[in-house]
Amino acid sequence: MSTPGFSGSRRLLEACLGLPVDRPPAWMMRQAGRYLPEYREVRSRASFFDLCRTPDLAIEVSLQPFRRFAPDGVIFFSDILVPVQAMGARVEFGEGGPELPEPVRCASDVARLRRFDPSREVAYTGEILRGLRREVGDRAAVIGFAGAPWTLASYLIEGGGSKSFAAIKQMMGRDRTTLSRLLDLLADVVADVLSFQIESGAQAVQIFDTWAGELTEEDYREWALPAASRAIAAIRQASPNRDPLARGEGAEGVPMILFVNVCGHLLEAMAESAADVLSIDWRLPLSQARRRVPGRALQGNLDPGALLGDPEDVRRRVRAMLAETGGRAHILNLGHGVLPQTPIECVEAFFEAARSGVGEAAAAEAPV
Amino acid sequence: MSTPGFSGSRRLLEACLGLPVDRPPAWMMRQAGRYLPEYREVRSRASFFDLCRTPDLAIEVSLQPFRRFAPDGVIFFSDILVPVQAMGARVEFGEGGPELPEPVRCASDVARLRRFDPSREVAYTGEILRGLRREVGDRAAVIGFAGAPWTLASYLIEGGGSKSFAAIKQMMGRDRTTLSRLLDLLADVVADVLSFQIESGAQAVQIFDTWAGELTEEDYREWALPAASRAIAAIRQASPNRDPLARGEGAEGVPMILFVNVCGHLLEAMAESAADVLSIDWRLPLSQARRRVPGRALQGNLDPGALLGDPEDVRRRVRAMLAETGGRAHILNLGHGVLPQTPIECVEAFFEAARSGVGEAAAAEAPV
Repeated sequence: MSTPGFSGSRRLLEACLGLPVDRPPAWMMRQAGRYLPEYREVRSRASFFDLCRTPDLAIEVSLQPFRRFAPDGVIFFSDILVPVQAMGARVEFGEGGPELPEPVRCASDVARLRRFDPSREVAYTGEILRGLRREVGDRAAVIGFAGAPWTLASYLIEGGGSKSFAAIKQMMGRDRTTLSRLLDLLADVVADVLSFQIESGAQAVQIFDTWAGELTEEDYREWALPAASRAIAAIRQASPNRDPLARGEGAEGVPMILFVNVCGHLLEAMAESAADVLSIDWRLPLSQARRRVPGRALQGNLDPGALLGDPEDVRRRVRAMLAETGGRAHILNLGHGVLPQTPIECVEAFFEAARSGVGEAAAAEAPV
Repeated sequence: MSTPGFSGSRRLLEACLGLPVDRPPAWMMRQAGRYLPEYREVRSRASFFDLCRTPDLAIEVSLQPFRRFAPDGVIFFSDILVPVQAMGARVEFGEGGPELPEPVRCASDVARLRRFDPSREVAYTGEILRGLRREVGDRAAVIGFAGAPWTLASYLIEGGGSKSFAAIKQMMGRDRTTLSRLLDLLADVVADVLSFQIESGAQAVQIFDTWAGELTEEDYREWALPAASRAIAAIRQASPNRDPLARGEGAEGVPMILFVNVCGHLLEAMAESAADVLSIDWRLPLSQARRRVPGRALQGNLDPGALLGDPEDVRRRVRAMLAETGGRAHILNLGHGVLPQTPIECVEAFFEAARSGVGEAAAAEAPV
């Protein structure tokens, strides 16, 4: 069903801007990862952080899912805590997820963190992105990313992952000045990092506000949203021209995707950001999201857990998602990252169903 | 503002059935717990499971928050995994939450689990409830509880808590028969356990389907909801008479509360159960829940994280909740359990604001 005029890169970038494409583009969050034997092979020879910091290895693992599944987007291999480490925080990657043994708890802890020049401190991320552009050409869009300020602040304050987010919520209630200062600093860092990624070749960028869904809408609007918006605005400021036909290599026209897990209660608030695409989790039906933020491009939203089942069920769920959006202004993706236990045949089924696109009838019926 | 005619017990039970009361009743999930120094004192002398199994100790810790805050409900101290242990599963309570070292992964694992007679195997839960009724009189309603089948199945299959619920979702996709059999068995166990609690004096019961919010609405309707409904129906069957004026000591008229964390996408489906009260998390605004399931009693929904902040902010948030419901058909509670880090003055502020009730204007305006 593909029109010869649509490269994977054009398909993804134009869908981000809501333009008509031959079929909805598809990629997967955390598509380079432990479910792939070739990833585990590379990872057995290098620590997680060495993988992030060594361009040859990071390029190799970023390309592994591209070679297997030909997604329309290739996200560069890294971790949202790479910039946090460059700010001066200690980060250790253990078996149970990242640990920050010196969590941020007061103003002086924030004062010890610093804004940094990505072209000096994380130059390797630029090298990885340039390498990926060379390798991938126009067959897929190269995607940069960063954690959103709220989510990075959660890791810094909690000292790692959390179930209850007690430490950051305590700071939210008891030391508003320190939390504001930290979020402002992180917004600047996120903007610096993503601007550098864009200069280095990222054709779209995704901001992961993974943990913002823990907040009520009121608290999201007060804390997480303004910090994410501040980062987005700083990136946009470089060039307000978003005409995709005039899209160049700079920040100009580079689509931005905002992801929040558990975002059903936050969608209208997320839409007040200048993000081109809202990436939603599996709990919120795409059809409902389309009604609530009409005209906004959506990304998502298959339950990563559904990829643990039967390939035929995966195909059915992908077709159902396409019927909900008619494939218009929609980037097929998961509602969160691929799980390590995922069988490869289910990932194949996802991309196969994505490539067969949406039927004419469904496309004609679905609202944009 | 209290009318002399309303005891705490009557206030809570009638609010569950949507009847007018003098002010909204209030209690807190996990109100007996680590944030109380007197709890930590008792806990220092007994293991967690000994606390659950020793009526004197369990009664003592259940009453601790009642003495301090005079809530309208006293939930008996226990754990949702007590019945799972009585089914024959090994459960260990470690520092990082419960662990089930022999997770259920196949049909023969399910076959090893058994339905049991609560009056023989967990007789102590009956003794605790009878003791609490004696101690509390009509000053508060004594509340029983159990985990819902889906949530108990999650623990059994994952072998403890989980971030991704990969094992149960894999079984959902690959071994539907085994999962159905486990959920049926658990529904019977939950019904047996709650019926026994009701016979032993529980005046209302809450079913915790804490992890069902991980499912899409489609999957919730296929798996978690029918299992919870089966348990509810089995309890109701004993006596269909729900006239609160005729409420007796048996299952007759005992209100049932269904709690799901992250339930915004599931509310209409939850309302298809026969639960009298839907207990919602903090992400879903009470006003929206009221519009979506009009006439249904609601419980909740302060963010437990908000109790880590400032007492004045807690009072403001409680007043805002009351304004949303007008205090009608509303049981004030949290959106999940009290966090161990919670300062006591914030819990006091919650109950204080609850007792001052809702202003006349707000009550007149709010829809039911």
